[in-house]
Amino acid sequence: MNLLLLEPADICDQQATLTDLRRLKHIHETLKLKVGDSIKIGVRDGWKGSAQIAEITSERVVLSDMVLDTQPPAKIPLTLVLALPRPLVLRRLITDAVTMGVERLVLLNSRAVEKSYWQSQVFDELQQLVVLGLEQAGDTIAPIIELRPRFRPFVEDELPALVEGKTAIVAHPYATQVAPIGLTSSCVLVVGAEGGFIPFEIDLLEKSGCQSVSLGQRILRTETAVPLLIGRLMG
Amino acid sequence: MNLLLLEPADICDQQATLTDLRRLKHIHETLKLKVGDSIKIGVRDGWKGSAQIAEITSERVVLSDMVLDTQPPAKIPLTLVLALPRPLVLRRLITDAVTMGVERLVLLNSRAVEKSYWQSQVFDELQQLVVLGLEQAGDTIAPIIELRPRFRPFVEDELPALVEGKTAIVAHPYATQVAPIGLTSSCVLVVGAEGGFIPFEIDLLEKSGCQSVSLGQRILRTETAVPLLIGRLMG
Repeated sequence: MNLLLLEPADICDQQATLTDLRRLKHIHETLKLKVGDSIKIGVRDGWKGSAQIAEITSERVVLSDMVLDTQPPAKIPLTLVLALPRPLVLRRLITDAVTMGVERLVLLNSRAVEKSYWQSQVFDELQQLVVLGLEQAGDTIAPIIELRPRFRPFVEDELPALVEGKTAIVAHPYATQVAPIGLTSSCVLVVGAEGGFIPFEIDLLEKSGCQSVSLGQRILRTETAVPLLIGRLMG
Repeated sequence: MNLLLLEPADICDQQATLTDLRRLKHIHETLKLKVGDSIKIGVRDGWKGSAQIAEITSERVVLSDMVLDTQPPAKIPLTLVLALPRPLVLRRLITDAVTMGVERLVLLNSRAVEKSYWQSQVFDELQQLVVLGLEQAGDTIAPIIELRPRFRPFVEDELPALVEGKTAIVAHPYATQVAPIGLTSSCVLVVGAEGGFIPFEIDLLEKSGCQSVSLGQRILRTETAVPLLIGRLMG
């Protein structure tokens, strides 16, 4: 946690009062703070800065002297369209995408996605995973996250408008074209789940404006390929 | 698993016989193969190709008609020097580093590394983690992996020779210089564990030829920063 994210509801009369177990535990056990200590804070959708511990007990922490003097870091101009991976991988990738500053995350169905993944309890934890990503990055603004449980309507009806004026690529281990590097424009990055996209899906993605690219001969796990591609694409 | 890695000991008289639970389970349960089916194989430190299932029981699988006609993918010319992270993260990063094709991995001590991490049972699993990474990537050649439980002797005595003629950088969230992109030369990448390097350590790394670079304002987890940096550095 590189900042403590405050929700508007935490704040009243220039003070913030925290009572939830997760943040109390972090302040007590990880940061080991006491009255008078300083802590980095950020206000949801707002600015970042610091506050002082005014009161600290096992039931609540009160922060005072809040100074909000820094803007949150800019997002990267990248939309990540991700075929829904299994829950364990999804959990990591949501937090990773938020931390890396992805502007928009679309979770998409594909042939290789198991139906049960759409019923995963990860979706109940979504807001919490976003908070973890923001706190890691030192950010205050959540990306847009959208669920698209039907592949074809998304790719045919929504994707063409989404990619317009942007570099749009789909990661495909067997493509002959290698992924571009150091883009200066906005970008849409489509990544398949384990098993990748089937030829019909690749074909449809290409018709909607995406270029198939590979990362060379190596086949990476989705959770490795996503940060590697983002690092490569962003100039 | 994008290829089945065969050890020299598996092979006798142009056939390979597998009896270990992990590979049997993968062939039975994941690939669901039967006699006559083809499987992608690679021979440790050798070439890749395919084989046919000649016999398959719950106790053993025999492969015949082995054709080895493809070279393993080239390594990327990158040495990763990693402050030893906690075991869960280390496990992921070893497999990731192998999969991405890192040439050499040095696991280094630093002030932020907990002493107990050096006694972690991950080190007993090291060979297994390497195999998983090779099988994911479709590679047959393990990187060099070295343990350096003493920071200063490594950085002062070994690192200067290691970085000679290469681009050498240390990832440091508070550096003003941003990480380079699309290198065409060999590279040494030094990455800290959670908590990063202390100023004394950064100073020593810089004296030994490493430039401190950041990834902008966002602070990433080690396991996200490593693939992102590798994607960014490799041209």
